[in-house]
Amino acid sequence: MKRESVRALLEQVRRGDVDPDQALESLSRLPFVDVEDARVDTHRALRHGLPEVVFAPGKAPDQIARIVRALRESDQDVLVTRVEAEVATRVEGELPGGEYSPVSRLLWYGPAEVATLGNGTIAVVSAGTSDLPVASEAAEVAGRFGNKVDALYDVGVAGIHRLLASSDVLRNARVVIAVAGMEGALPSVVGGLVDKPVIAVPTSIGYGAAFGGIAALLGMLTSCASNVTVVNIDNGFGAAYVATLINRL
Amino acid sequence: MKRESVRALLEQVRRGDVDPDQALESLSRLPFVDVEDARVDTHRALRHGLPEVVFAPGKAPDQIARIVRALRESDQDVLVTRVEAEVATRVEGELPGGEYSPVSRLLWYGPAEVATLGNGTIAVVSAGTSDLPVASEAAEVAGRFGNKVDALYDVGVAGIHRLLASSDVLRNARVVIAVAGMEGALPSVVGGLVDKPVIAVPTSIGYGAAFGGIAALLGMLTSCASNVTVVNIDNGFGAAYVATLINRL
Amino acid sequence: MKRESVRALLEQVRRGDVDPDQALESLSRLPFVDVEDARVDTHRALRHGLPEVVFAPGKAPDQIARIVRALRESDQDVLVTRVEAEVATRVEGELPGGEYSPVSRLLWYGPAEVATLGNGTIAVVSAGTSDLPVASEAAEVAGRFGNKVDALYDVGVAGIHRLLASSDVLRNARVVIAVAGMEGALPSVVGGLVDKPVIAVPTSIGYGAAFGGIAALLGMLTSCASNVTVVNIDNGFGAAYVATLINRL
Amino acid sequence: MKRESVRALLEQVRRGDVDPDQALESLSRLPFVDVEDARVDTHRALRHGLPEVVFAPGKAPDQIARIVRALRESDQDVLVTRVEAEVATRVEGELPGGEYSPVSRLLWYGPAEVATLGNGTIAVVSAGTSDLPVASEAAEVAGRFGNKVDALYDVGVAGIHRLLASSDVLRNARVVIAVAGMEGALPSVVGGLVDKPVIAVPTSIGYGAAFGGIAALLGMLTSCASNVTVVNIDNGFGAAYVATLINRL
Amino acid sequence: MKRESVRALLEQVRRGDVDPDQALESLSRLPFVDVEDARVDTHRALRHGLPEVVFAPGKAPDQIARIVRALRESDQDVLVTRVEAEVATRVEGELPGGEYSPVSRLLWYGPAEVATLGNGTIAVVSAGTSDLPVASEAAEVAGRFGNKVDALYDVGVAGIHRLLASSDVLRNARVVIAVAGMEGALPSVVGGLVDKPVIAVPTSIGYGAAFGGIAALLGMLTSCASNVTVVNIDNGFGAAYVATLINRL
Amino acid sequence: MKRESVRALLEQVRRGDVDPDQALESLSRLPFVDVEDARVDTHRALRHGLPEVVFAPGKAPDQIARIVRALRESDQDVLVTRVEAEVATRVEGELPGGEYSPVSRLLWYGPAEVATLGNGTIAVVSAGTSDLPVASEAAEVAGRFGNKVDALYDVGVAGIHRLLASSDVLRNARVVIAVAGMEGALPSVVGGLVDKPVIAVPTSIGYGAAFGGIAALLGMLTSCASNVTVVNIDNGFGAAYVATLINRL
Amino acid sequence: MKRESVRALLEQVRRGDVDPDQALESLSRLPFVDVEDARVDTHRALRHGLPEVVFAPGKAPDQIARIVRALRESDQDVLVTRVEAEVATRVEGELPGGEYSPVSRLLWYGPAEVATLGNGTIAVVSAGTSDLPVASEAAEVAGRFGNKVDALYDVGVAGIHRLLASSDVLRNARVVIAVAGMEGALPSVVGGLVDKPVIAVPTSIGYGAAFGGIAALLGMLTSCASNVTVVNIDNGFGAAYVATLINRL
Amino acid sequence: MKRESVRALLEQVRRGDVDPDQALESLSRLPFVDVEDARVDTHRALRHGLPEVVFAPGKAPDQIARIVRALRESDQDVLVTRVEAEVATRVEGELPGGEYSPVSRLLWYGPAEVATLGNGTIAVVSAGTSDLPVASEAAEVAGRFGNKVDALYDVGVAGIHRLLASSDVLRNARVVIAVAGMEGALPSVVGGLVDKPVIAVPTSIGYGAAFGGIAALLGMLTSCASNVTVVNIDNGFGAAYVATLINRL
Repeated sequence: MKRESVRALLEQVRRGDVDPDQALESLSRLPFVDVEDARVDTHRALRHGLPEVVFAPGKAPDQIARIVRALRESDQDVLVTRVEAEVATRVEGELPGGEYSPVSRLLWYGPAEVATLGNGTIAVVSAGTSDLPVASEAAEVAGRFGNKVDALYDVGVAGIHRLLASSDVLRNARVVIAVAGMEGALPSVVGGLVDKPVIAVPTSIGYGAAFGGIAALLGMLTSCASNVTVVNIDNGFGAAYVATLINRL
Repeated sequence: MKRESVRALLEQVRRGDVDPDQALESLSRLPFVDVEDARVDTHRALRHGLPEVVFAPGKAPDQIARIVRALRESDQDVLVTRVEAEVATRVEGELPGGEYSPVSRLLWYGPAEVATLGNGTIAVVSAGTSDLPVASEAAEVAGRFGNKVDALYDVGVAGIHRLLASSDVLRNARVVIAVAGMEGALPSVVGGLVDKPVIAVPTSIGYGAAFGGIAALLGMLTSCASNVTVVNIDNGFGAAYVATLINRL
Repeated sequence: MKRESVRALLEQVRRGDVDPDQALESLSRLPFVDVEDARVDTHRALRHGLPEVVFAPGKAPDQIARIVRALRESDQDVLVTRVEAEVATRVEGELPGGEYSPVSRLLWYGPAEVATLGNGTIAVVSAGTSDLPVASEAAEVAGRFGNKVDALYDVGVAGIHRLLASSDVLRNARVVIAVAGMEGALPSVVGGLVDKPVIAVPTSIGYGAAFGGIAALLGMLTSCASNVTVVNIDNGFGAAYVATLINRL
Repeated sequence: MKRESVRALLEQVRRGDVDPDQALESLSRLPFVDVEDARVDTHRALRHGLPEVVFAPGKAPDQIARIVRALRESDQDVLVTRVEAEVATRVEGELPGGEYSPVSRLLWYGPAEVATLGNGTIAVVSAGTSDLPVASEAAEVAGRFGNKVDALYDVGVAGIHRLLASSDVLRNARVVIAVAGMEGALPSVVGGLVDKPVIAVPTSIGYGAAFGGIAALLGMLTSCASNVTVVNIDNGFGAAYVATLINRL
Repeated sequence: MKRESVRALLEQVRRGDVDPDQALESLSRLPFVDVEDARVDTHRALRHGLPEVVFAPGKAPDQIARIVRALRESDQDVLVTRVEAEVATRVEGELPGGEYSPVSRLLWYGPAEVATLGNGTIAVVSAGTSDLPVASEAAEVAGRFGNKVDALYDVGVAGIHRLLASSDVLRNARVVIAVAGMEGALPSVVGGLVDKPVIAVPTSIGYGAAFGGIAALLGMLTSCASNVTVVNIDNGFGAAYVATLINRL
Repeated sequence: MKRESVRALLEQVRRGDVDPDQALESLSRLPFVDVEDARVDTHRALRHGLPEVVFAPGKAPDQIARIVRALRESDQDVLVTRVEAEVATRVEGELPGGEYSPVSRLLWYGPAEVATLGNGTIAVVSAGTSDLPVASEAAEVAGRFGNKVDALYDVGVAGIHRLLASSDVLRNARVVIAVAGMEGALPSVVGGLVDKPVIAVPTSIGYGAAFGGIAALLGMLTSCASNVTVVNIDNGFGAAYVATLINRL
Repeated sequence: MKRESVRALLEQVRRGDVDPDQALESLSRLPFVDVEDARVDTHRALRHGLPEVVFAPGKAPDQIARIVRALRESDQDVLVTRVEAEVATRVEGELPGGEYSPVSRLLWYGPAEVATLGNGTIAVVSAGTSDLPVASEAAEVAGRFGNKVDALYDVGVAGIHRLLASSDVLRNARVVIAVAGMEGALPSVVGGLVDKPVIAVPTSIGYGAAFGGIAALLGMLTSCASNVTVVNIDNGFGAAYVATLINRL
Repeated sequence: MKRESVRALLEQVRRGDVDPDQALESLSRLPFVDVEDARVDTHRALRHGLPEVVFAPGKAPDQIARIVRALRESDQDVLVTRVEAEVATRVEGELPGGEYSPVSRLLWYGPAEVATLGNGTIAVVSAGTSDLPVASEAAEVAGRFGNKVDALYDVGVAGIHRLLASSDVLRNARVVIAVAGMEGALPSVVGGLVDKPVIAVPTSIGYGAAFGGIAALLGMLTSCASNVTVVNIDNGFGAAYVATLINRL
């Protein structure tokens, strides 16, 4: 039932065509107005001037192209995440105009420059070179979402001085995204260096007892630093999304 | 906002005191009528003539007594689940009139006889004597919910002939609840003997590799019988609840 | 030993050709009549007018074709589940006349229309687009089994209003199948909206801490809604099978 | 070595009393100023006007009293977390003036009223009555840390309308803390209703497949809502801490 | 229906009092003769001259005493397993004549000497002093079941020479029970020293990564010795039971 | 040091060429005679007239061929296990004369008929058609090891009558191997039907909560039948090996 | 057979009283000299001048006292580990002269001062105050074993500067023991600061996703620092033992 | 900021060009000297005369070649670990002069002979032929790092005499690396035979309940031998690295 239908019903009540009790019955089941086919994420995204986001895994290249084209025709920017190189090539073959980043596996349809909307800087720090895909996903998503981003890669805790040498980057940030695989200790150290929210992203990097990111995930959840919250393994996008919300406060 | 308030608002619209657009604004956020403090389960329960259910663990005896008294004052029957014997004694000390079953750990405030509402019989079968608390919880809850119940205990699969000897009980049932700990094989065998829905309840009975019910749970989820669905470990109440819904169809 | 053999034996006893003690010996070991090579599931299926079901994984295309041909020659309808597209093509190459659905991965040999046998409607709701294969397996199996089916896809709990907007579908159903991956929260919300049995199907959709469906599975087993039972991860078929049994009550 | 000592050293260098090479040696090892015995958390807390926090488990009542007394003598407010009732009684016996909350298990030594420092409101929502200890820990900690707090308890997803009825609370918040045990679905639903950061707190409430909070934890980590981050099981304090940092941005 | 009833039925058929078709109907459902209430284990035990076995955990002392008395009145020997010392005292208080072994936690009602029935010797070896309760349960059960038993305790693999020094014990055995906690390596070493079946019993001894016996259990299941089979954690009784069956071949 | 060397040393002592203390030193370190390069398994195998066994996974076809050729040149029979079809083809290309079984994945170099050495029959029962590779590995290994084997496949517990119909096979066996995937309930039922040792083999068959055989493994370890021991997941070979040892007693 | 017996045998061979072949037979089975009842650890300990070690859990106070008395009568020093305070009191009641440390839970019977045997210093660092029992067990055991020990407690990674301020302690050590619970990140940071072996000890400190030390254990096993090895959860003793062996090289 | 810069700054202070307070500000943030872009591991490696190490997985062949070339141009030796054969071929195609070992998967760019730096011998023992890749990685890395290495392969505990026959190798070593998959029992036995540190390496060898190395890992962590420490699954490199550090003490 759409907003117009509700107004019509109310008009009927005013005109006496419908009994209040009948209307009550109709309305008591009505939890909202007019959502039907629209995606809630879309609505929220639009309100915030954020691009649409499409999660590529499990979708065929032509399916991705079709979705992106439809969104582009509605004048929306589109960010496709977790796009393997060969998929990107095929999507761009069907729909030119995209910008693909092979490290972050992001495919972007939108302006080269995005207006800055956040109030400060988001710092993205990562532990090892293998964590780069997840860290750069976080950094580039944050950038496409209109944030100033400072990236600081390869500052693992076994070489703690490198991290400390760049602590200005951390101190200048409004929110920090800390990405690490293996033992996932980076967010704890970072959390101790800053007084800002730290969003920890465990990665599936590592072998054996790393268990595809479980070691890092557990380490981050049990961090001795109180300012650390955690997102799912490899979820660089989610960290950037939350960091964006925080940065706009 | 209560049902009365909505009717009042609609009356105002009819009288022209309130503009339909204003009313629309008020109503568009209103997903339901009159829930505030009442428990949704209560509403559903009342519609079905089911008693109120209180889950005892984590509640102090006087807290349980207070809740039950309030419900009794509203003329509702009340079933308290997972009540340890000493807790039951203290609750009954504060609020006489209850009926306590030490095996099923159920404390009942209501009529000794409940009207039969289901269309058939619910069979409750269990594997070992240690599964009795869970099985009898399922059987007695089903009984208090107005079902005819046939109970068949201690028919574990290592003595398969005992189960087969009583297969009439299974065949006469409209829905079967199968309770088992350890390897949890009973629902698979039962599922092969009947053409009715089988609700499997893993119990935490067993030691070592039983892992507090995990072995039974996994066994039931991977049952080779297609008519088996599963509830949580030791959740005899939940099985009886779903069986009641099915038996009323 | 077939039913006929037993009757013959009893005739021999009546004629005095066989001693009661000898007959006792023969009969005391006889737990059933006429199963030999036939599959028990077949018998049950036939009694209910259900098609035969073949689980494809682990079977070669020519093996599947051989099984289906044998069943078709016995005038039975056959439903093959979990058939990958290339397998379907090869089976249909050997045995024309099948109907393949690439999303649900079902291959059907039987009439285009199946007589309706259930007493009401089965609602199939699912959370995300990635859950579609499992959800459509459930919906199509339910349809091939003679049920009226209402499907409601892509109504995940993070956009709760979409689900609420379609709550009529839920309320009209006799039994609901709720399919969800990731956190698997859909059955809890659905369970709170209806007073019917809800069969929850966790899917292996998700990454990281989804652990191939474990997160969803645990979420559904510990649902705060009492009318939820659970089947194995990705087991759309099993959910449809049980829903069919319930719908025929 | 304290800040004053460093300045003294530099003065010595200026006066020529100390050779630059010697000073270099002393300083090159000095990564920070004045930490020696003080707890880093203390420093951070003091800079932000936050009270000192003492984690009670594993500490004897007299040990707690000693720590608190020492801190009080330094004119600091002290918040002791996870204090069981009998422990609180004994601590207060040794050190009067505390304020104990038996539900949140917090023991507070400080002013009855704390000045508001955050820029908005923190909403704390929880699913069931059993989650109350964790939810109220979050809410009271946030209050003691100077935030305005809106609490909304017992709004589990199986009764979704209750949550929707109070969605104003959610929409007015700058950051939301969502607390849930069992299947932990609440943060996903809440995350879909607001455009603010949601900090999810899994609780150890539940039995069987809840596995002491693992089911809720996994559910929250794999939430389909992108604005959800997660803290450790039962970590109401940590959620309030991060929410405070966000609310001060 | 008992064996006598079946014979009676067959007599009726012979006399023509009952129609073969009717008798067929009665018999076709009859999978066995005479089990009704009797415990299958009892029957099996009696056939083999084995004592009755009662598993004590979860049973109250008076309940145990009642069961044992009933069995004793049927002239059966009874072995109660996993009996804590205070329980044994109370059972013996109600029913004198038992023999209690505090290490193996076995309570025996039967002759001091049991006739030897097995064809050879069962060796029981264990790794550490903490494994003694499980190892002695195995050894004493095997003894009560009529086997000659050779016990060899405290021969852990970190002191391999002690085990090798007693390899005659192993070589003289017909079947070996190897009991170990912690890393559970003993059965692998023993399996390499003998050409007989080795029944491995993991114990819950150990801390940390021993995970209550999981480390030992996994180690035994993945043993590089091909002659090792495994029973549940701490299941000394089960190992003795199977060893008895093997020793009687 | 070989047996001959020890004798030589002792001769030297007798002749006085070597001092007893020196000899003592040499001998005290000598735990065995003459093993150097020979595989212990080989020795054991030879003593029992068993063929050599080669585990194929991880070995290249030419490596397998080389090992088999060397063993054949020593006049030994060789059984290669877990050989994929293409590997078998390549091994047989390099070394003709083998006999390959594609279901059990065994490659046999030895006489077509093996002399019977065991004292009775080994029964191999399995639950589903998918368990056939493991079950037939067990059955064929047992056959190649000189045992009479009775195989009974596709007798899963959901169709319990099929198993009961063939209970003669079970009762005639000296030892039973029970193979099952999914919930792994077969050994419990079989264990209740026979008074012989039952060796349970969990298989990795199943999906979702079967967890690659964990559900079946746990179910078998916690079996309510006391005569069940367990080997590793899919370890048909190990079951046959132990059954052979038992059958020769 | 003891060393003397072997010499006697060899003398008999020299004298010609025993035939070399007979002696060969006797000796070929003899893997060692003189272990019978003695504990191998004792022998090793004695050779190194280490005290005897008794692990208290699972032993009654009088049992501990008896063991210690026997060892003291052999002039050996004894270190009892994991002794709870009340147990220590009772042991000392029976056997005066012990020195009990309530934090490390060590009970020592030996000289107040132990001669220094190691070549350098063992550093023991720990993360939080709750890790103190395990850290001080490691430090005190190392001390009783004759090592110089430098302890550095409460230097968790969330306050990284405290650790860096004391890096001299780390650099001066020959081997470092790093003790940490929760996320267990300390060994990684320490490992990056020193070029010496680091023995990591996970503790069971923490709650929720710490899973009794699993989070710390996994973190340490997957450390990005290559010089880290790991012992069992809470195994401060084992770390000290290995550190002692290293320090004596 | 480099050491020279700090000296320059201090000179400026001495000359009065810079104010002590300003210098204090500059210095208080300076935790280290001269690390900027250099890898800490490199520095450490160089100090010890160790080669650079590159971990190949996740790096493309040309990327590996580029890194190695850059390091070679700085006159450093380079060891690339975990290099698959085809990758090695491609790297050597781009950068000749490497030495590839297909079993250990090591690619070496450096002198054929490395100067011996350690004080003793490192023994590497392994359990089965399948453990060879990990064991030879450990042995060859230790060799390239300048240690004398004694390797002893295929000495699994099920054939304990083979290990005992070579115990001289163990006794002569200064540190032992013990590599084993499946039940991982080898380090416990080895630990009992030597008085030196034993570094245990679990391998991912095995199937079923081996769980990719978990069984071996848990077994090693819970070893009853006190001189065992553990590294990550398959981490032969890490074991060799720590053994090298110990051997240089």
